[in-house]
Amino acid sequence: MTSPWTQARRAARMNPSIIREILKVTEKPGVLSMAGGLPSADTFPVEALKAACDKVLSENAKEALQYAASEGFAPLREWVAERVKSLGMKVSADQVLITTGSQQGLDLVGKILCDQGAPVAVETPTYLGALQAFTPYEPLFASLATDEEGVLPEAIKKLPQVSPGTRFAYLLPNYQNPTGRVMGAERRAAVMAAAREAGLPVVEDNPYGDLWFDEAPPAALSSYWPEGSIYLGSFSKVLTPGFRLGFIIAPKELYPKLLQAKQAADLHTPGFNQRVVYEVIRNGFLEQHVPKIRAKYKANRDAMATALEQHLPPGCVWQKPKGGMFFWIRLPEGFDAMAMLETAVEAGIAYVPGAAFYAHAPDLRTLRLSFVTLTPELIADGVAILGKVLKQALEMAPEHAP
Amino acid sequence: MTSPWTQARRAARMNPSIIREILKVTEKPGVLSMAGGLPSADTFPVEALKAACDKVLSENAKEALQYAASEGFAPLREWVAERVKSLGMKVSADQVLITTGSQQGLDLVGKILCDQGAPVAVETPTYLGALQAFTPYEPLFASLATDEEGVLPEAIKKLPQVSPGTRFAYLLPNYQNPTGRVMGAERRAAVMAAAREAGLPVVEDNPYGDLWFDEAPPAALSSYWPEGSIYLGSFSKVLTPGFRLGFIIAPKELYPKLLQAKQAADLHTPGFNQRVVYEVIRNGFLEQHVPKIRAKYKANRDAMATALEQHLPPGCVWQKPKGGMFFWIRLPEGFDAMAMLETAVEAGIAYVPGAAFYAHAPDLRTLRLSFVTLTPELIADGVAILGKVLKQALEMAPEHAP
Repeated sequence: MTSPWTQARRAARMNPSIIREILKVTEKPGVLSMAGGLPSADTFPVEALKAACDKVLSENAKEALQYAASEGFAPLREWVAERVKSLGMKVSADQVLITTGSQQGLDLVGKILCDQGAPVAVETPTYLGALQAFTPYEPLFASLATDEEGVLPEAIKKLPQVSPGTRFAYLLPNYQNPTGRVMGAERRAAVMAAAREAGLPVVEDNPYGDLWFDEAPPAALSSYWPEGSIYLGSFSKVLTPGFRLGFIIAPKELYPKLLQAKQAADLHTPGFNQRVVYEVIRNGFLEQHVPKIRAKYKANRDAMATALEQHLPPGCVWQKPKGGMFFWIRLPEGFDAMAMLETAVEAGIAYVPGAAFYAHAPDLRTLRLSFVTLTPELIADGVAILGKVLKQALEMAPEHAP
Repeated sequence: MTSPWTQARRAARMNPSIIREILKVTEKPGVLSMAGGLPSADTFPVEALKAACDKVLSENAKEALQYAASEGFAPLREWVAERVKSLGMKVSADQVLITTGSQQGLDLVGKILCDQGAPVAVETPTYLGALQAFTPYEPLFASLATDEEGVLPEAIKKLPQVSPGTRFAYLLPNYQNPTGRVMGAERRAAVMAAAREAGLPVVEDNPYGDLWFDEAPPAALSSYWPEGSIYLGSFSKVLTPGFRLGFIIAPKELYPKLLQAKQAADLHTPGFNQRVVYEVIRNGFLEQHVPKIRAKYKANRDAMATALEQHLPPGCVWQKPKGGMFFWIRLPEGFDAMAMLETAVEAGIAYVPGAAFYAHAPDLRTLRLSFVTLTPELIADGVAILGKVLKQALEMAPEHAP
């Protein structure tokens, strides 16, 4: 029997999340997983959330449980506008749109800015979820050259020639997923000057910016060119991802269209969740809470750095991340992190092969390790196993040696 | 200064929700509003939700606050699959996708099934939120002829000729928003036989089906042709809209694509909300709770029916709805409900002009009244004012008389 359904052209481009497929493979009992991008559940402020749920349902139940404004809960929008001042941003609450996680922010941006065949520039590599969010809107991806600080200003400068009509550059300046890298202040200035000069708007995604270890990252990219920037933020890494709360800060020119896209997408983000989170954070809670997350993640980062030094064979290359959740490893020549995954899982550890994070020409030698889900002790065990797997592969195929 | 932003072609089609704009006008102090589509906040089970929040955060906080499966919380999906058996549907839990309100279900359906210029058939009139959800995907809307039971089987039969390549028909068989009408069993059989014969899939939206007053509506449209039907459901009208919980039931053929669209849209619906709602409903709560909503809404419906009989001038036409939340009024010839709104608001009442609910050729004489937000006493007052406004208009322009 033939199907009565005809799918949209865009549906043919959509694919299952490779990471989610990989996670299914790697979530075997007994496997030490450094694959997931999940924040540590130990950091979730359970008691504060419990008290806030109770308060909201005791004092404002009818409002919290009713349909609500598509823009979001006004006091939370005010809080966000105030909060981003510390990133050098001067915005008003009416530029803040509360989203159902920052993934929805990416979807709404794609919906109002992407056309079939119109280029969108992304870092090499970039966040997989953004590729997934934009893909249904059928852009052409242009991969921007990067180094250990992120995108190169020259790559932005060349864009009007090599990829005319690019709608925006999607950039993650802080502890990027997957590479963990952070963009320095000079680089930011150079990149944003180049973007402005090229007339290339920037979509800045900042889920990890609060997770710095020794010093806060420089000012937001959006602070350099507010009218040419959209900023995406999230409560997932500093409070809980399970409430699905993020936000967009947009130039006033774009806000009405984003709002219409938001109405069409889910009417509004759960008002209950917005009020509960606002109740938790309104009186400076994050000032006490986030430093604890930083300290915990920093200890884990250090444990992984030590273990990598100790166990990885020569020829593996990585940077020690200054924040965030991830190490990004490049294996010696000839390695294929995807091909090696099965062996690694059998040996008892899991990672995410880096290939998933490239819009084009994946670097098969790369892999991502999360340092926030395991304890320092298990990180040491896991990295030791990874080292053993790599050394065995080197012995079996010595041409891999650097 | 010129803008650096280029918007997507689809963005030009998107518009602010007319209803939300109207609500801003009508939400004046002292105005009796029958405009909103909000369920009565008195029906929200505050204590049950409070207990469930506490339980989930006491017993399963880490899971509830962590990232979760895009498909939704497994026990909730099981519950939905079991629940819809009462609608004649036989589905498995792996056909259930939890969505961020059923508005998101509409967006995901549009995303995977609508192409630029490909027709989508809708009832005349239809739910405005669906028009908004589908519009960014640039379909051509085909308006299906209807009567007091909804879409006519003949309209479906003609569709392959008059609108070849129609992707699906979007139908609301139960107490439709805005008309309040319900499709009888014979009509359902005839419509679905015609759809099957025409090879025209159906997207069935059922937010109001539980809100029947005297007898439950007939079996779901989807039960007649499961492989040609997508079913959308919601917890907004039987529990709370503020948790933003809905679901899609899809044929197995379409499920993976809907799931990919869901991942791209917001990764997953808040896991906390899913667990809390499951905790509330798992042991038959709705069997006690929903009858209370029905009784309350029925009393309001009766109050409005009585008041309409008493106060509306001759020539106004309406059906007494057998469930749901809305009366749909057609004014005498020459009236324009949109043009009259300002006068009505000044007189102290608000409604939604019906024009917003048409894909084409709006019937300017129509308006929608909600009977669930005011008390029976205020409904009587509000309808009396509406009657006065109409009678005054008739006196000033007697050619309106029927």
